[in-house]
Amino acid sequence: MSKNSPGNYFEDFRIGQVIRHATPRTVTSGDVSLYTGLFGPRFAVQSSDAFAKAIGYPRAPIDDLLVFHIVFGKTVPDVSLNAVANLGYAGCYFRAPVYPGDTLTALSEVIGLKENSSHKTGIVYVRTTGYRDDTPVLEYVRWVMVRKRDEAAPAPGDHVPRLPTVVEPKVLGEACPALDIQDYDFALAGSPHRFGNYAVGEKIDHVDGITVEEAEAQIATRLYQNTARIHFNQYIEGKGRFGRRLIYGGHVISLARSLSFNGLANAFHVAAINGGRHVAPFFAGGTVFAWSEVLAKSELPGRDDVGALRLRTVATRDRSCEDFPLKTGEDYDPAVLLDLDYWVLMPR
Amino acid sequence: MSKNSPGNYFEDFRIGQVIRHATPRTVTSGDVSLYTGLFGPRFAVQSSDAFAKAIGYPRAPIDDLLVFHIVFGKTVPDVSLNAVANLGYAGCYFRAPVYPGDTLTALSEVIGLKENSSHKTGIVYVRTTGYRDDTPVLEYVRWVMVRKRDEAAPAPGDHVPRLPTVVEPKVLGEACPALDIQDYDFALAGSPHRFGNYAVGEKIDHVDGITVEEAEAQIATRLYQNTARIHFNQYIEGKGRFGRRLIYGGHVISLARSLSFNGLANAFHVAAINGGRHVAPFFAGGTVFAWSEVLAKSELPGRDDVGALRLRTVATRDRSCEDFPLKTGEDYDPAVLLDLDYWVLMPR
Amino acid sequence: MSKNSPGNYFEDFRIGQVIRHATPRTVTSGDVSLYTGLFGPRFAVQSSDAFAKAIGYPRAPIDDLLVFHIVFGKTVPDVSLNAVANLGYAGCYFRAPVYPGDTLTALSEVIGLKENSSHKTGIVYVRTTGYRDDTPVLEYVRWVMVRKRDEAAPAPGDHVPRLPTVVEPKVLGEACPALDIQDYDFALAGSPHRFGNYAVGEKIDHVDGITVEEAEAQIATRLYQNTARIHFNQYIEGKGRFGRRLIYGGHVISLARSLSFNGLANAFHVAAINGGRHVAPFFAGGTVFAWSEVLAKSELPGRDDVGALRLRTVATRDRSCEDFPLKTGEDYDPAVLLDLDYWVLMPR
Repeated sequence: MSKNSPGNYFEDFRIGQVIRHATPRTVTSGDVSLYTGLFGPRFAVQSSDAFAKAIGYPRAPIDDLLVFHIVFGKTVPDVSLNAVANLGYAGCYFRAPVYPGDTLTALSEVIGLKENSSHKTGIVYVRTTGYRDDTPVLEYVRWVMVRKRDEAAPAPGDHVPRLPTVVEPKVLGEACPALDIQDYDFALAGSPHRFGNYAVGEKIDHVDGITVEEAEAQIATRLYQNTARIHFNQYIEGKGRFGRRLIYGGHVISLARSLSFNGLANAFHVAAINGGRHVAPFFAGGTVFAWSEVLAKSELPGRDDVGALRLRTVATRDRSCEDFPLKTGEDYDPAVLLDLDYWVLMPR
Repeated sequence: MSKNSPGNYFEDFRIGQVIRHATPRTVTSGDVSLYTGLFGPRFAVQSSDAFAKAIGYPRAPIDDLLVFHIVFGKTVPDVSLNAVANLGYAGCYFRAPVYPGDTLTALSEVIGLKENSSHKTGIVYVRTTGYRDDTPVLEYVRWVMVRKRDEAAPAPGDHVPRLPTVVEPKVLGEACPALDIQDYDFALAGSPHRFGNYAVGEKIDHVDGITVEEAEAQIATRLYQNTARIHFNQYIEGKGRFGRRLIYGGHVISLARSLSFNGLANAFHVAAINGGRHVAPFFAGGTVFAWSEVLAKSELPGRDDVGALRLRTVATRDRSCEDFPLKTGEDYDPAVLLDLDYWVLMPR
Repeated sequence: MSKNSPGNYFEDFRIGQVIRHATPRTVTSGDVSLYTGLFGPRFAVQSSDAFAKAIGYPRAPIDDLLVFHIVFGKTVPDVSLNAVANLGYAGCYFRAPVYPGDTLTALSEVIGLKENSSHKTGIVYVRTTGYRDDTPVLEYVRWVMVRKRDEAAPAPGDHVPRLPTVVEPKVLGEACPALDIQDYDFALAGSPHRFGNYAVGEKIDHVDGITVEEAEAQIATRLYQNTARIHFNQYIEGKGRFGRRLIYGGHVISLARSLSFNGLANAFHVAAINGGRHVAPFFAGGTVFAWSEVLAKSELPGRDDVGALRLRTVATRDRSCEDFPLKTGEDYDPAVLLDLDYWVLMPR
């Protein structure tokens, strides 16, 4: 028996299968610094212990997307090492704040399997939960197209789960403690605009652009212990489909989130991701811009400290966003990289 | 009203205006590690808790220049987002040590305004103070040339402040606690040379050179949450004046400081910056060398533990410094990048 | 007397000479994060405080190779600044675990000197010990070929020490506390394979490859405060033997170790390095692959928690390792970069 792991192929999965992922990971202030250096986020709650404490957190929580990337990274060796494409996310929401010193683990349940008609690949649906000890901190469904090892192998199952198109507002506050919003310093946070100032349909250009270097993308992706080969191996990828390493899709999400500070400075917490599409592959040397639209607004049941904005944030490559590029006819504008639908919390 | 911020233009400033800057920032040992990885400083006091404690610090303090860069970074969105050029510094001195866990904020007062004769730009003078809670940790004056939004707008003021050409020795010890210099281990610190061994007029070649990569410069500048566009956006800068991203001037200062260890190993504290000039723009791929001259020496009133050296440190690009390059006739040698005038403290 | 240090030349060394190296260095969780971002290690013991505590560590220890690189880095300014080549290691073993907050120092004794027949260079043998306070944490012998300042200078000594070819099993547990192996969670650690599952002669392909960028190599090497010029100065190296910066050999060791997780996930502790050869120089842009062979197995005297595997790990450049490349006739395969002989500990 070989000691190395080739990863799972489509026929290796079973409906109901539960996978405990390696490697447990203690998140530290060192991770926060490196994440800051890689993406430049400026949201006050995550940046300052003093600011976070003033409004009721025990200290600055870990950036939500850093938690997402670490939990996601753990699933790669078991779920998507032999993936052809990462197809989608649904029902992603944060369930408890994470602080430096907390140790994260991840567990996935296979909730759907659907072989493709070619018999070469199949779609695997997993519900992944990230934990701090026994407390769930994050949950999401992800589906990926995975190669079969043997085309002749029978399909291991045939079930497509029903997935929510939007996360319900009632769970959006789970990872946000009750806050003393009268002590939220809007000047220090960088903007006077609060929940009430945003209107459904409003569009915001986030103005700036950030160019991505190979070293940055590799450092980030290794920080999450994400082992997807396509991000790291120029020798192999140089002979492959793109001729180069592909940037992890989550890298673009984090850049778009950081850019969104310019216009959404008080959107301090990503509460949920309803869905997202990596519209085009992204490579080092490209410059990421972003814009956002307010899709909906929601109060949180029983809470008057924060409200939720449902945002669409669109990231582009080498194209500024003052005219909010999205579609050209039926298709996405060729500059669009990411179309993300998510909920953020903002002081009321 | 647009939610994003375009930054301030010349006519938006007023004499006496006070700006509280976003974003508060807790400095951590993670920042120290990343700063070490980016610049390679080797000064024992900042590198070792044990060394720092032995001489009277509660623990290793944060590198002075890291404090400077973080405070400076906060001012960019309000002061220099529409700047054409960063013209100078004066009266910069450190007022209290900063330790991991401290949260930094920054506040600027507009102390001068002078429209240029073209009516297209004007010079803005700000005095910026960095704080840890209510304690000032750093103070400096900076002036920048800022674009006008509307050339026809009246000048918002007309006053050029008087600025010191050198920081007075009496304040140089403010960020340095009284030290037990008998417990300062010169071998461990890397050099036997103390305050008394340096002579005014002495020149020191710092020998080594460090090449800068784009990823390094971007990671550093984002670590400071500095949002100046010219450092990050190749898509825009590729079409601009230089055809490429400009390296943040502070990056060259930090490299020169790290290189200066070879010859100034016991200059453990940058106490003040009298002034500095970024003589030429710097780009990734270049290699930075440095040399220093002792301009003056000063005792500190009432203290016999440390003394101050006033240094000129000159950084060059792609040119070694064994012959101390500076001027060619009236002009700077074309290899010179930085001409920095500052005070360091050294054990007596 | 010049204040800068030119480093030692061959004739500056004496048998029995003891060198206390600058700079003391407190290792922190920030260093761990950056090391993770640079190499992507996934060993559970070093990644998770909770995992480490469950089996008897007070918290997650610092990665052994990070300790090695930091101690090694301190010796460079005194031992190898004028080195032509780093020739070998022997008798390297870890003597105590290191945790975040510990301050490392290093001390070297010159144990051998041998002038080369050209009279231009000589070989210097040093035994280096890394300390946490007064506790040795690491010890190794290293020999380097160092230039003479003056070819006419007499040889400073003539003695070649006898060096062990393998570290004795009795010392391999020194840096590993007694562990509660019943609480070692193999699923969480990423593999069911324990000491008993590995056979002498077994070869393992570690499958993946990682491409190295200049920025990554520079950041890593500065993190260790390693000042070897050849790694940092493109202006000088561009005119030199290779036309480019050389990657620090330890960078390849750390990459090979991280890659080895795929097949050796429970080899959680590098206990000793018997010897190693940097077979070929390595440069940015290359992709590192690795494979390992089990050379021997050993129980540890008096311990039934862990056993030791003696491994040969071979790293290659731009060549996958499914066929275990090593020699072509007498010579190394031209793709081989590293041939490392070391001991790891694994749960029994």
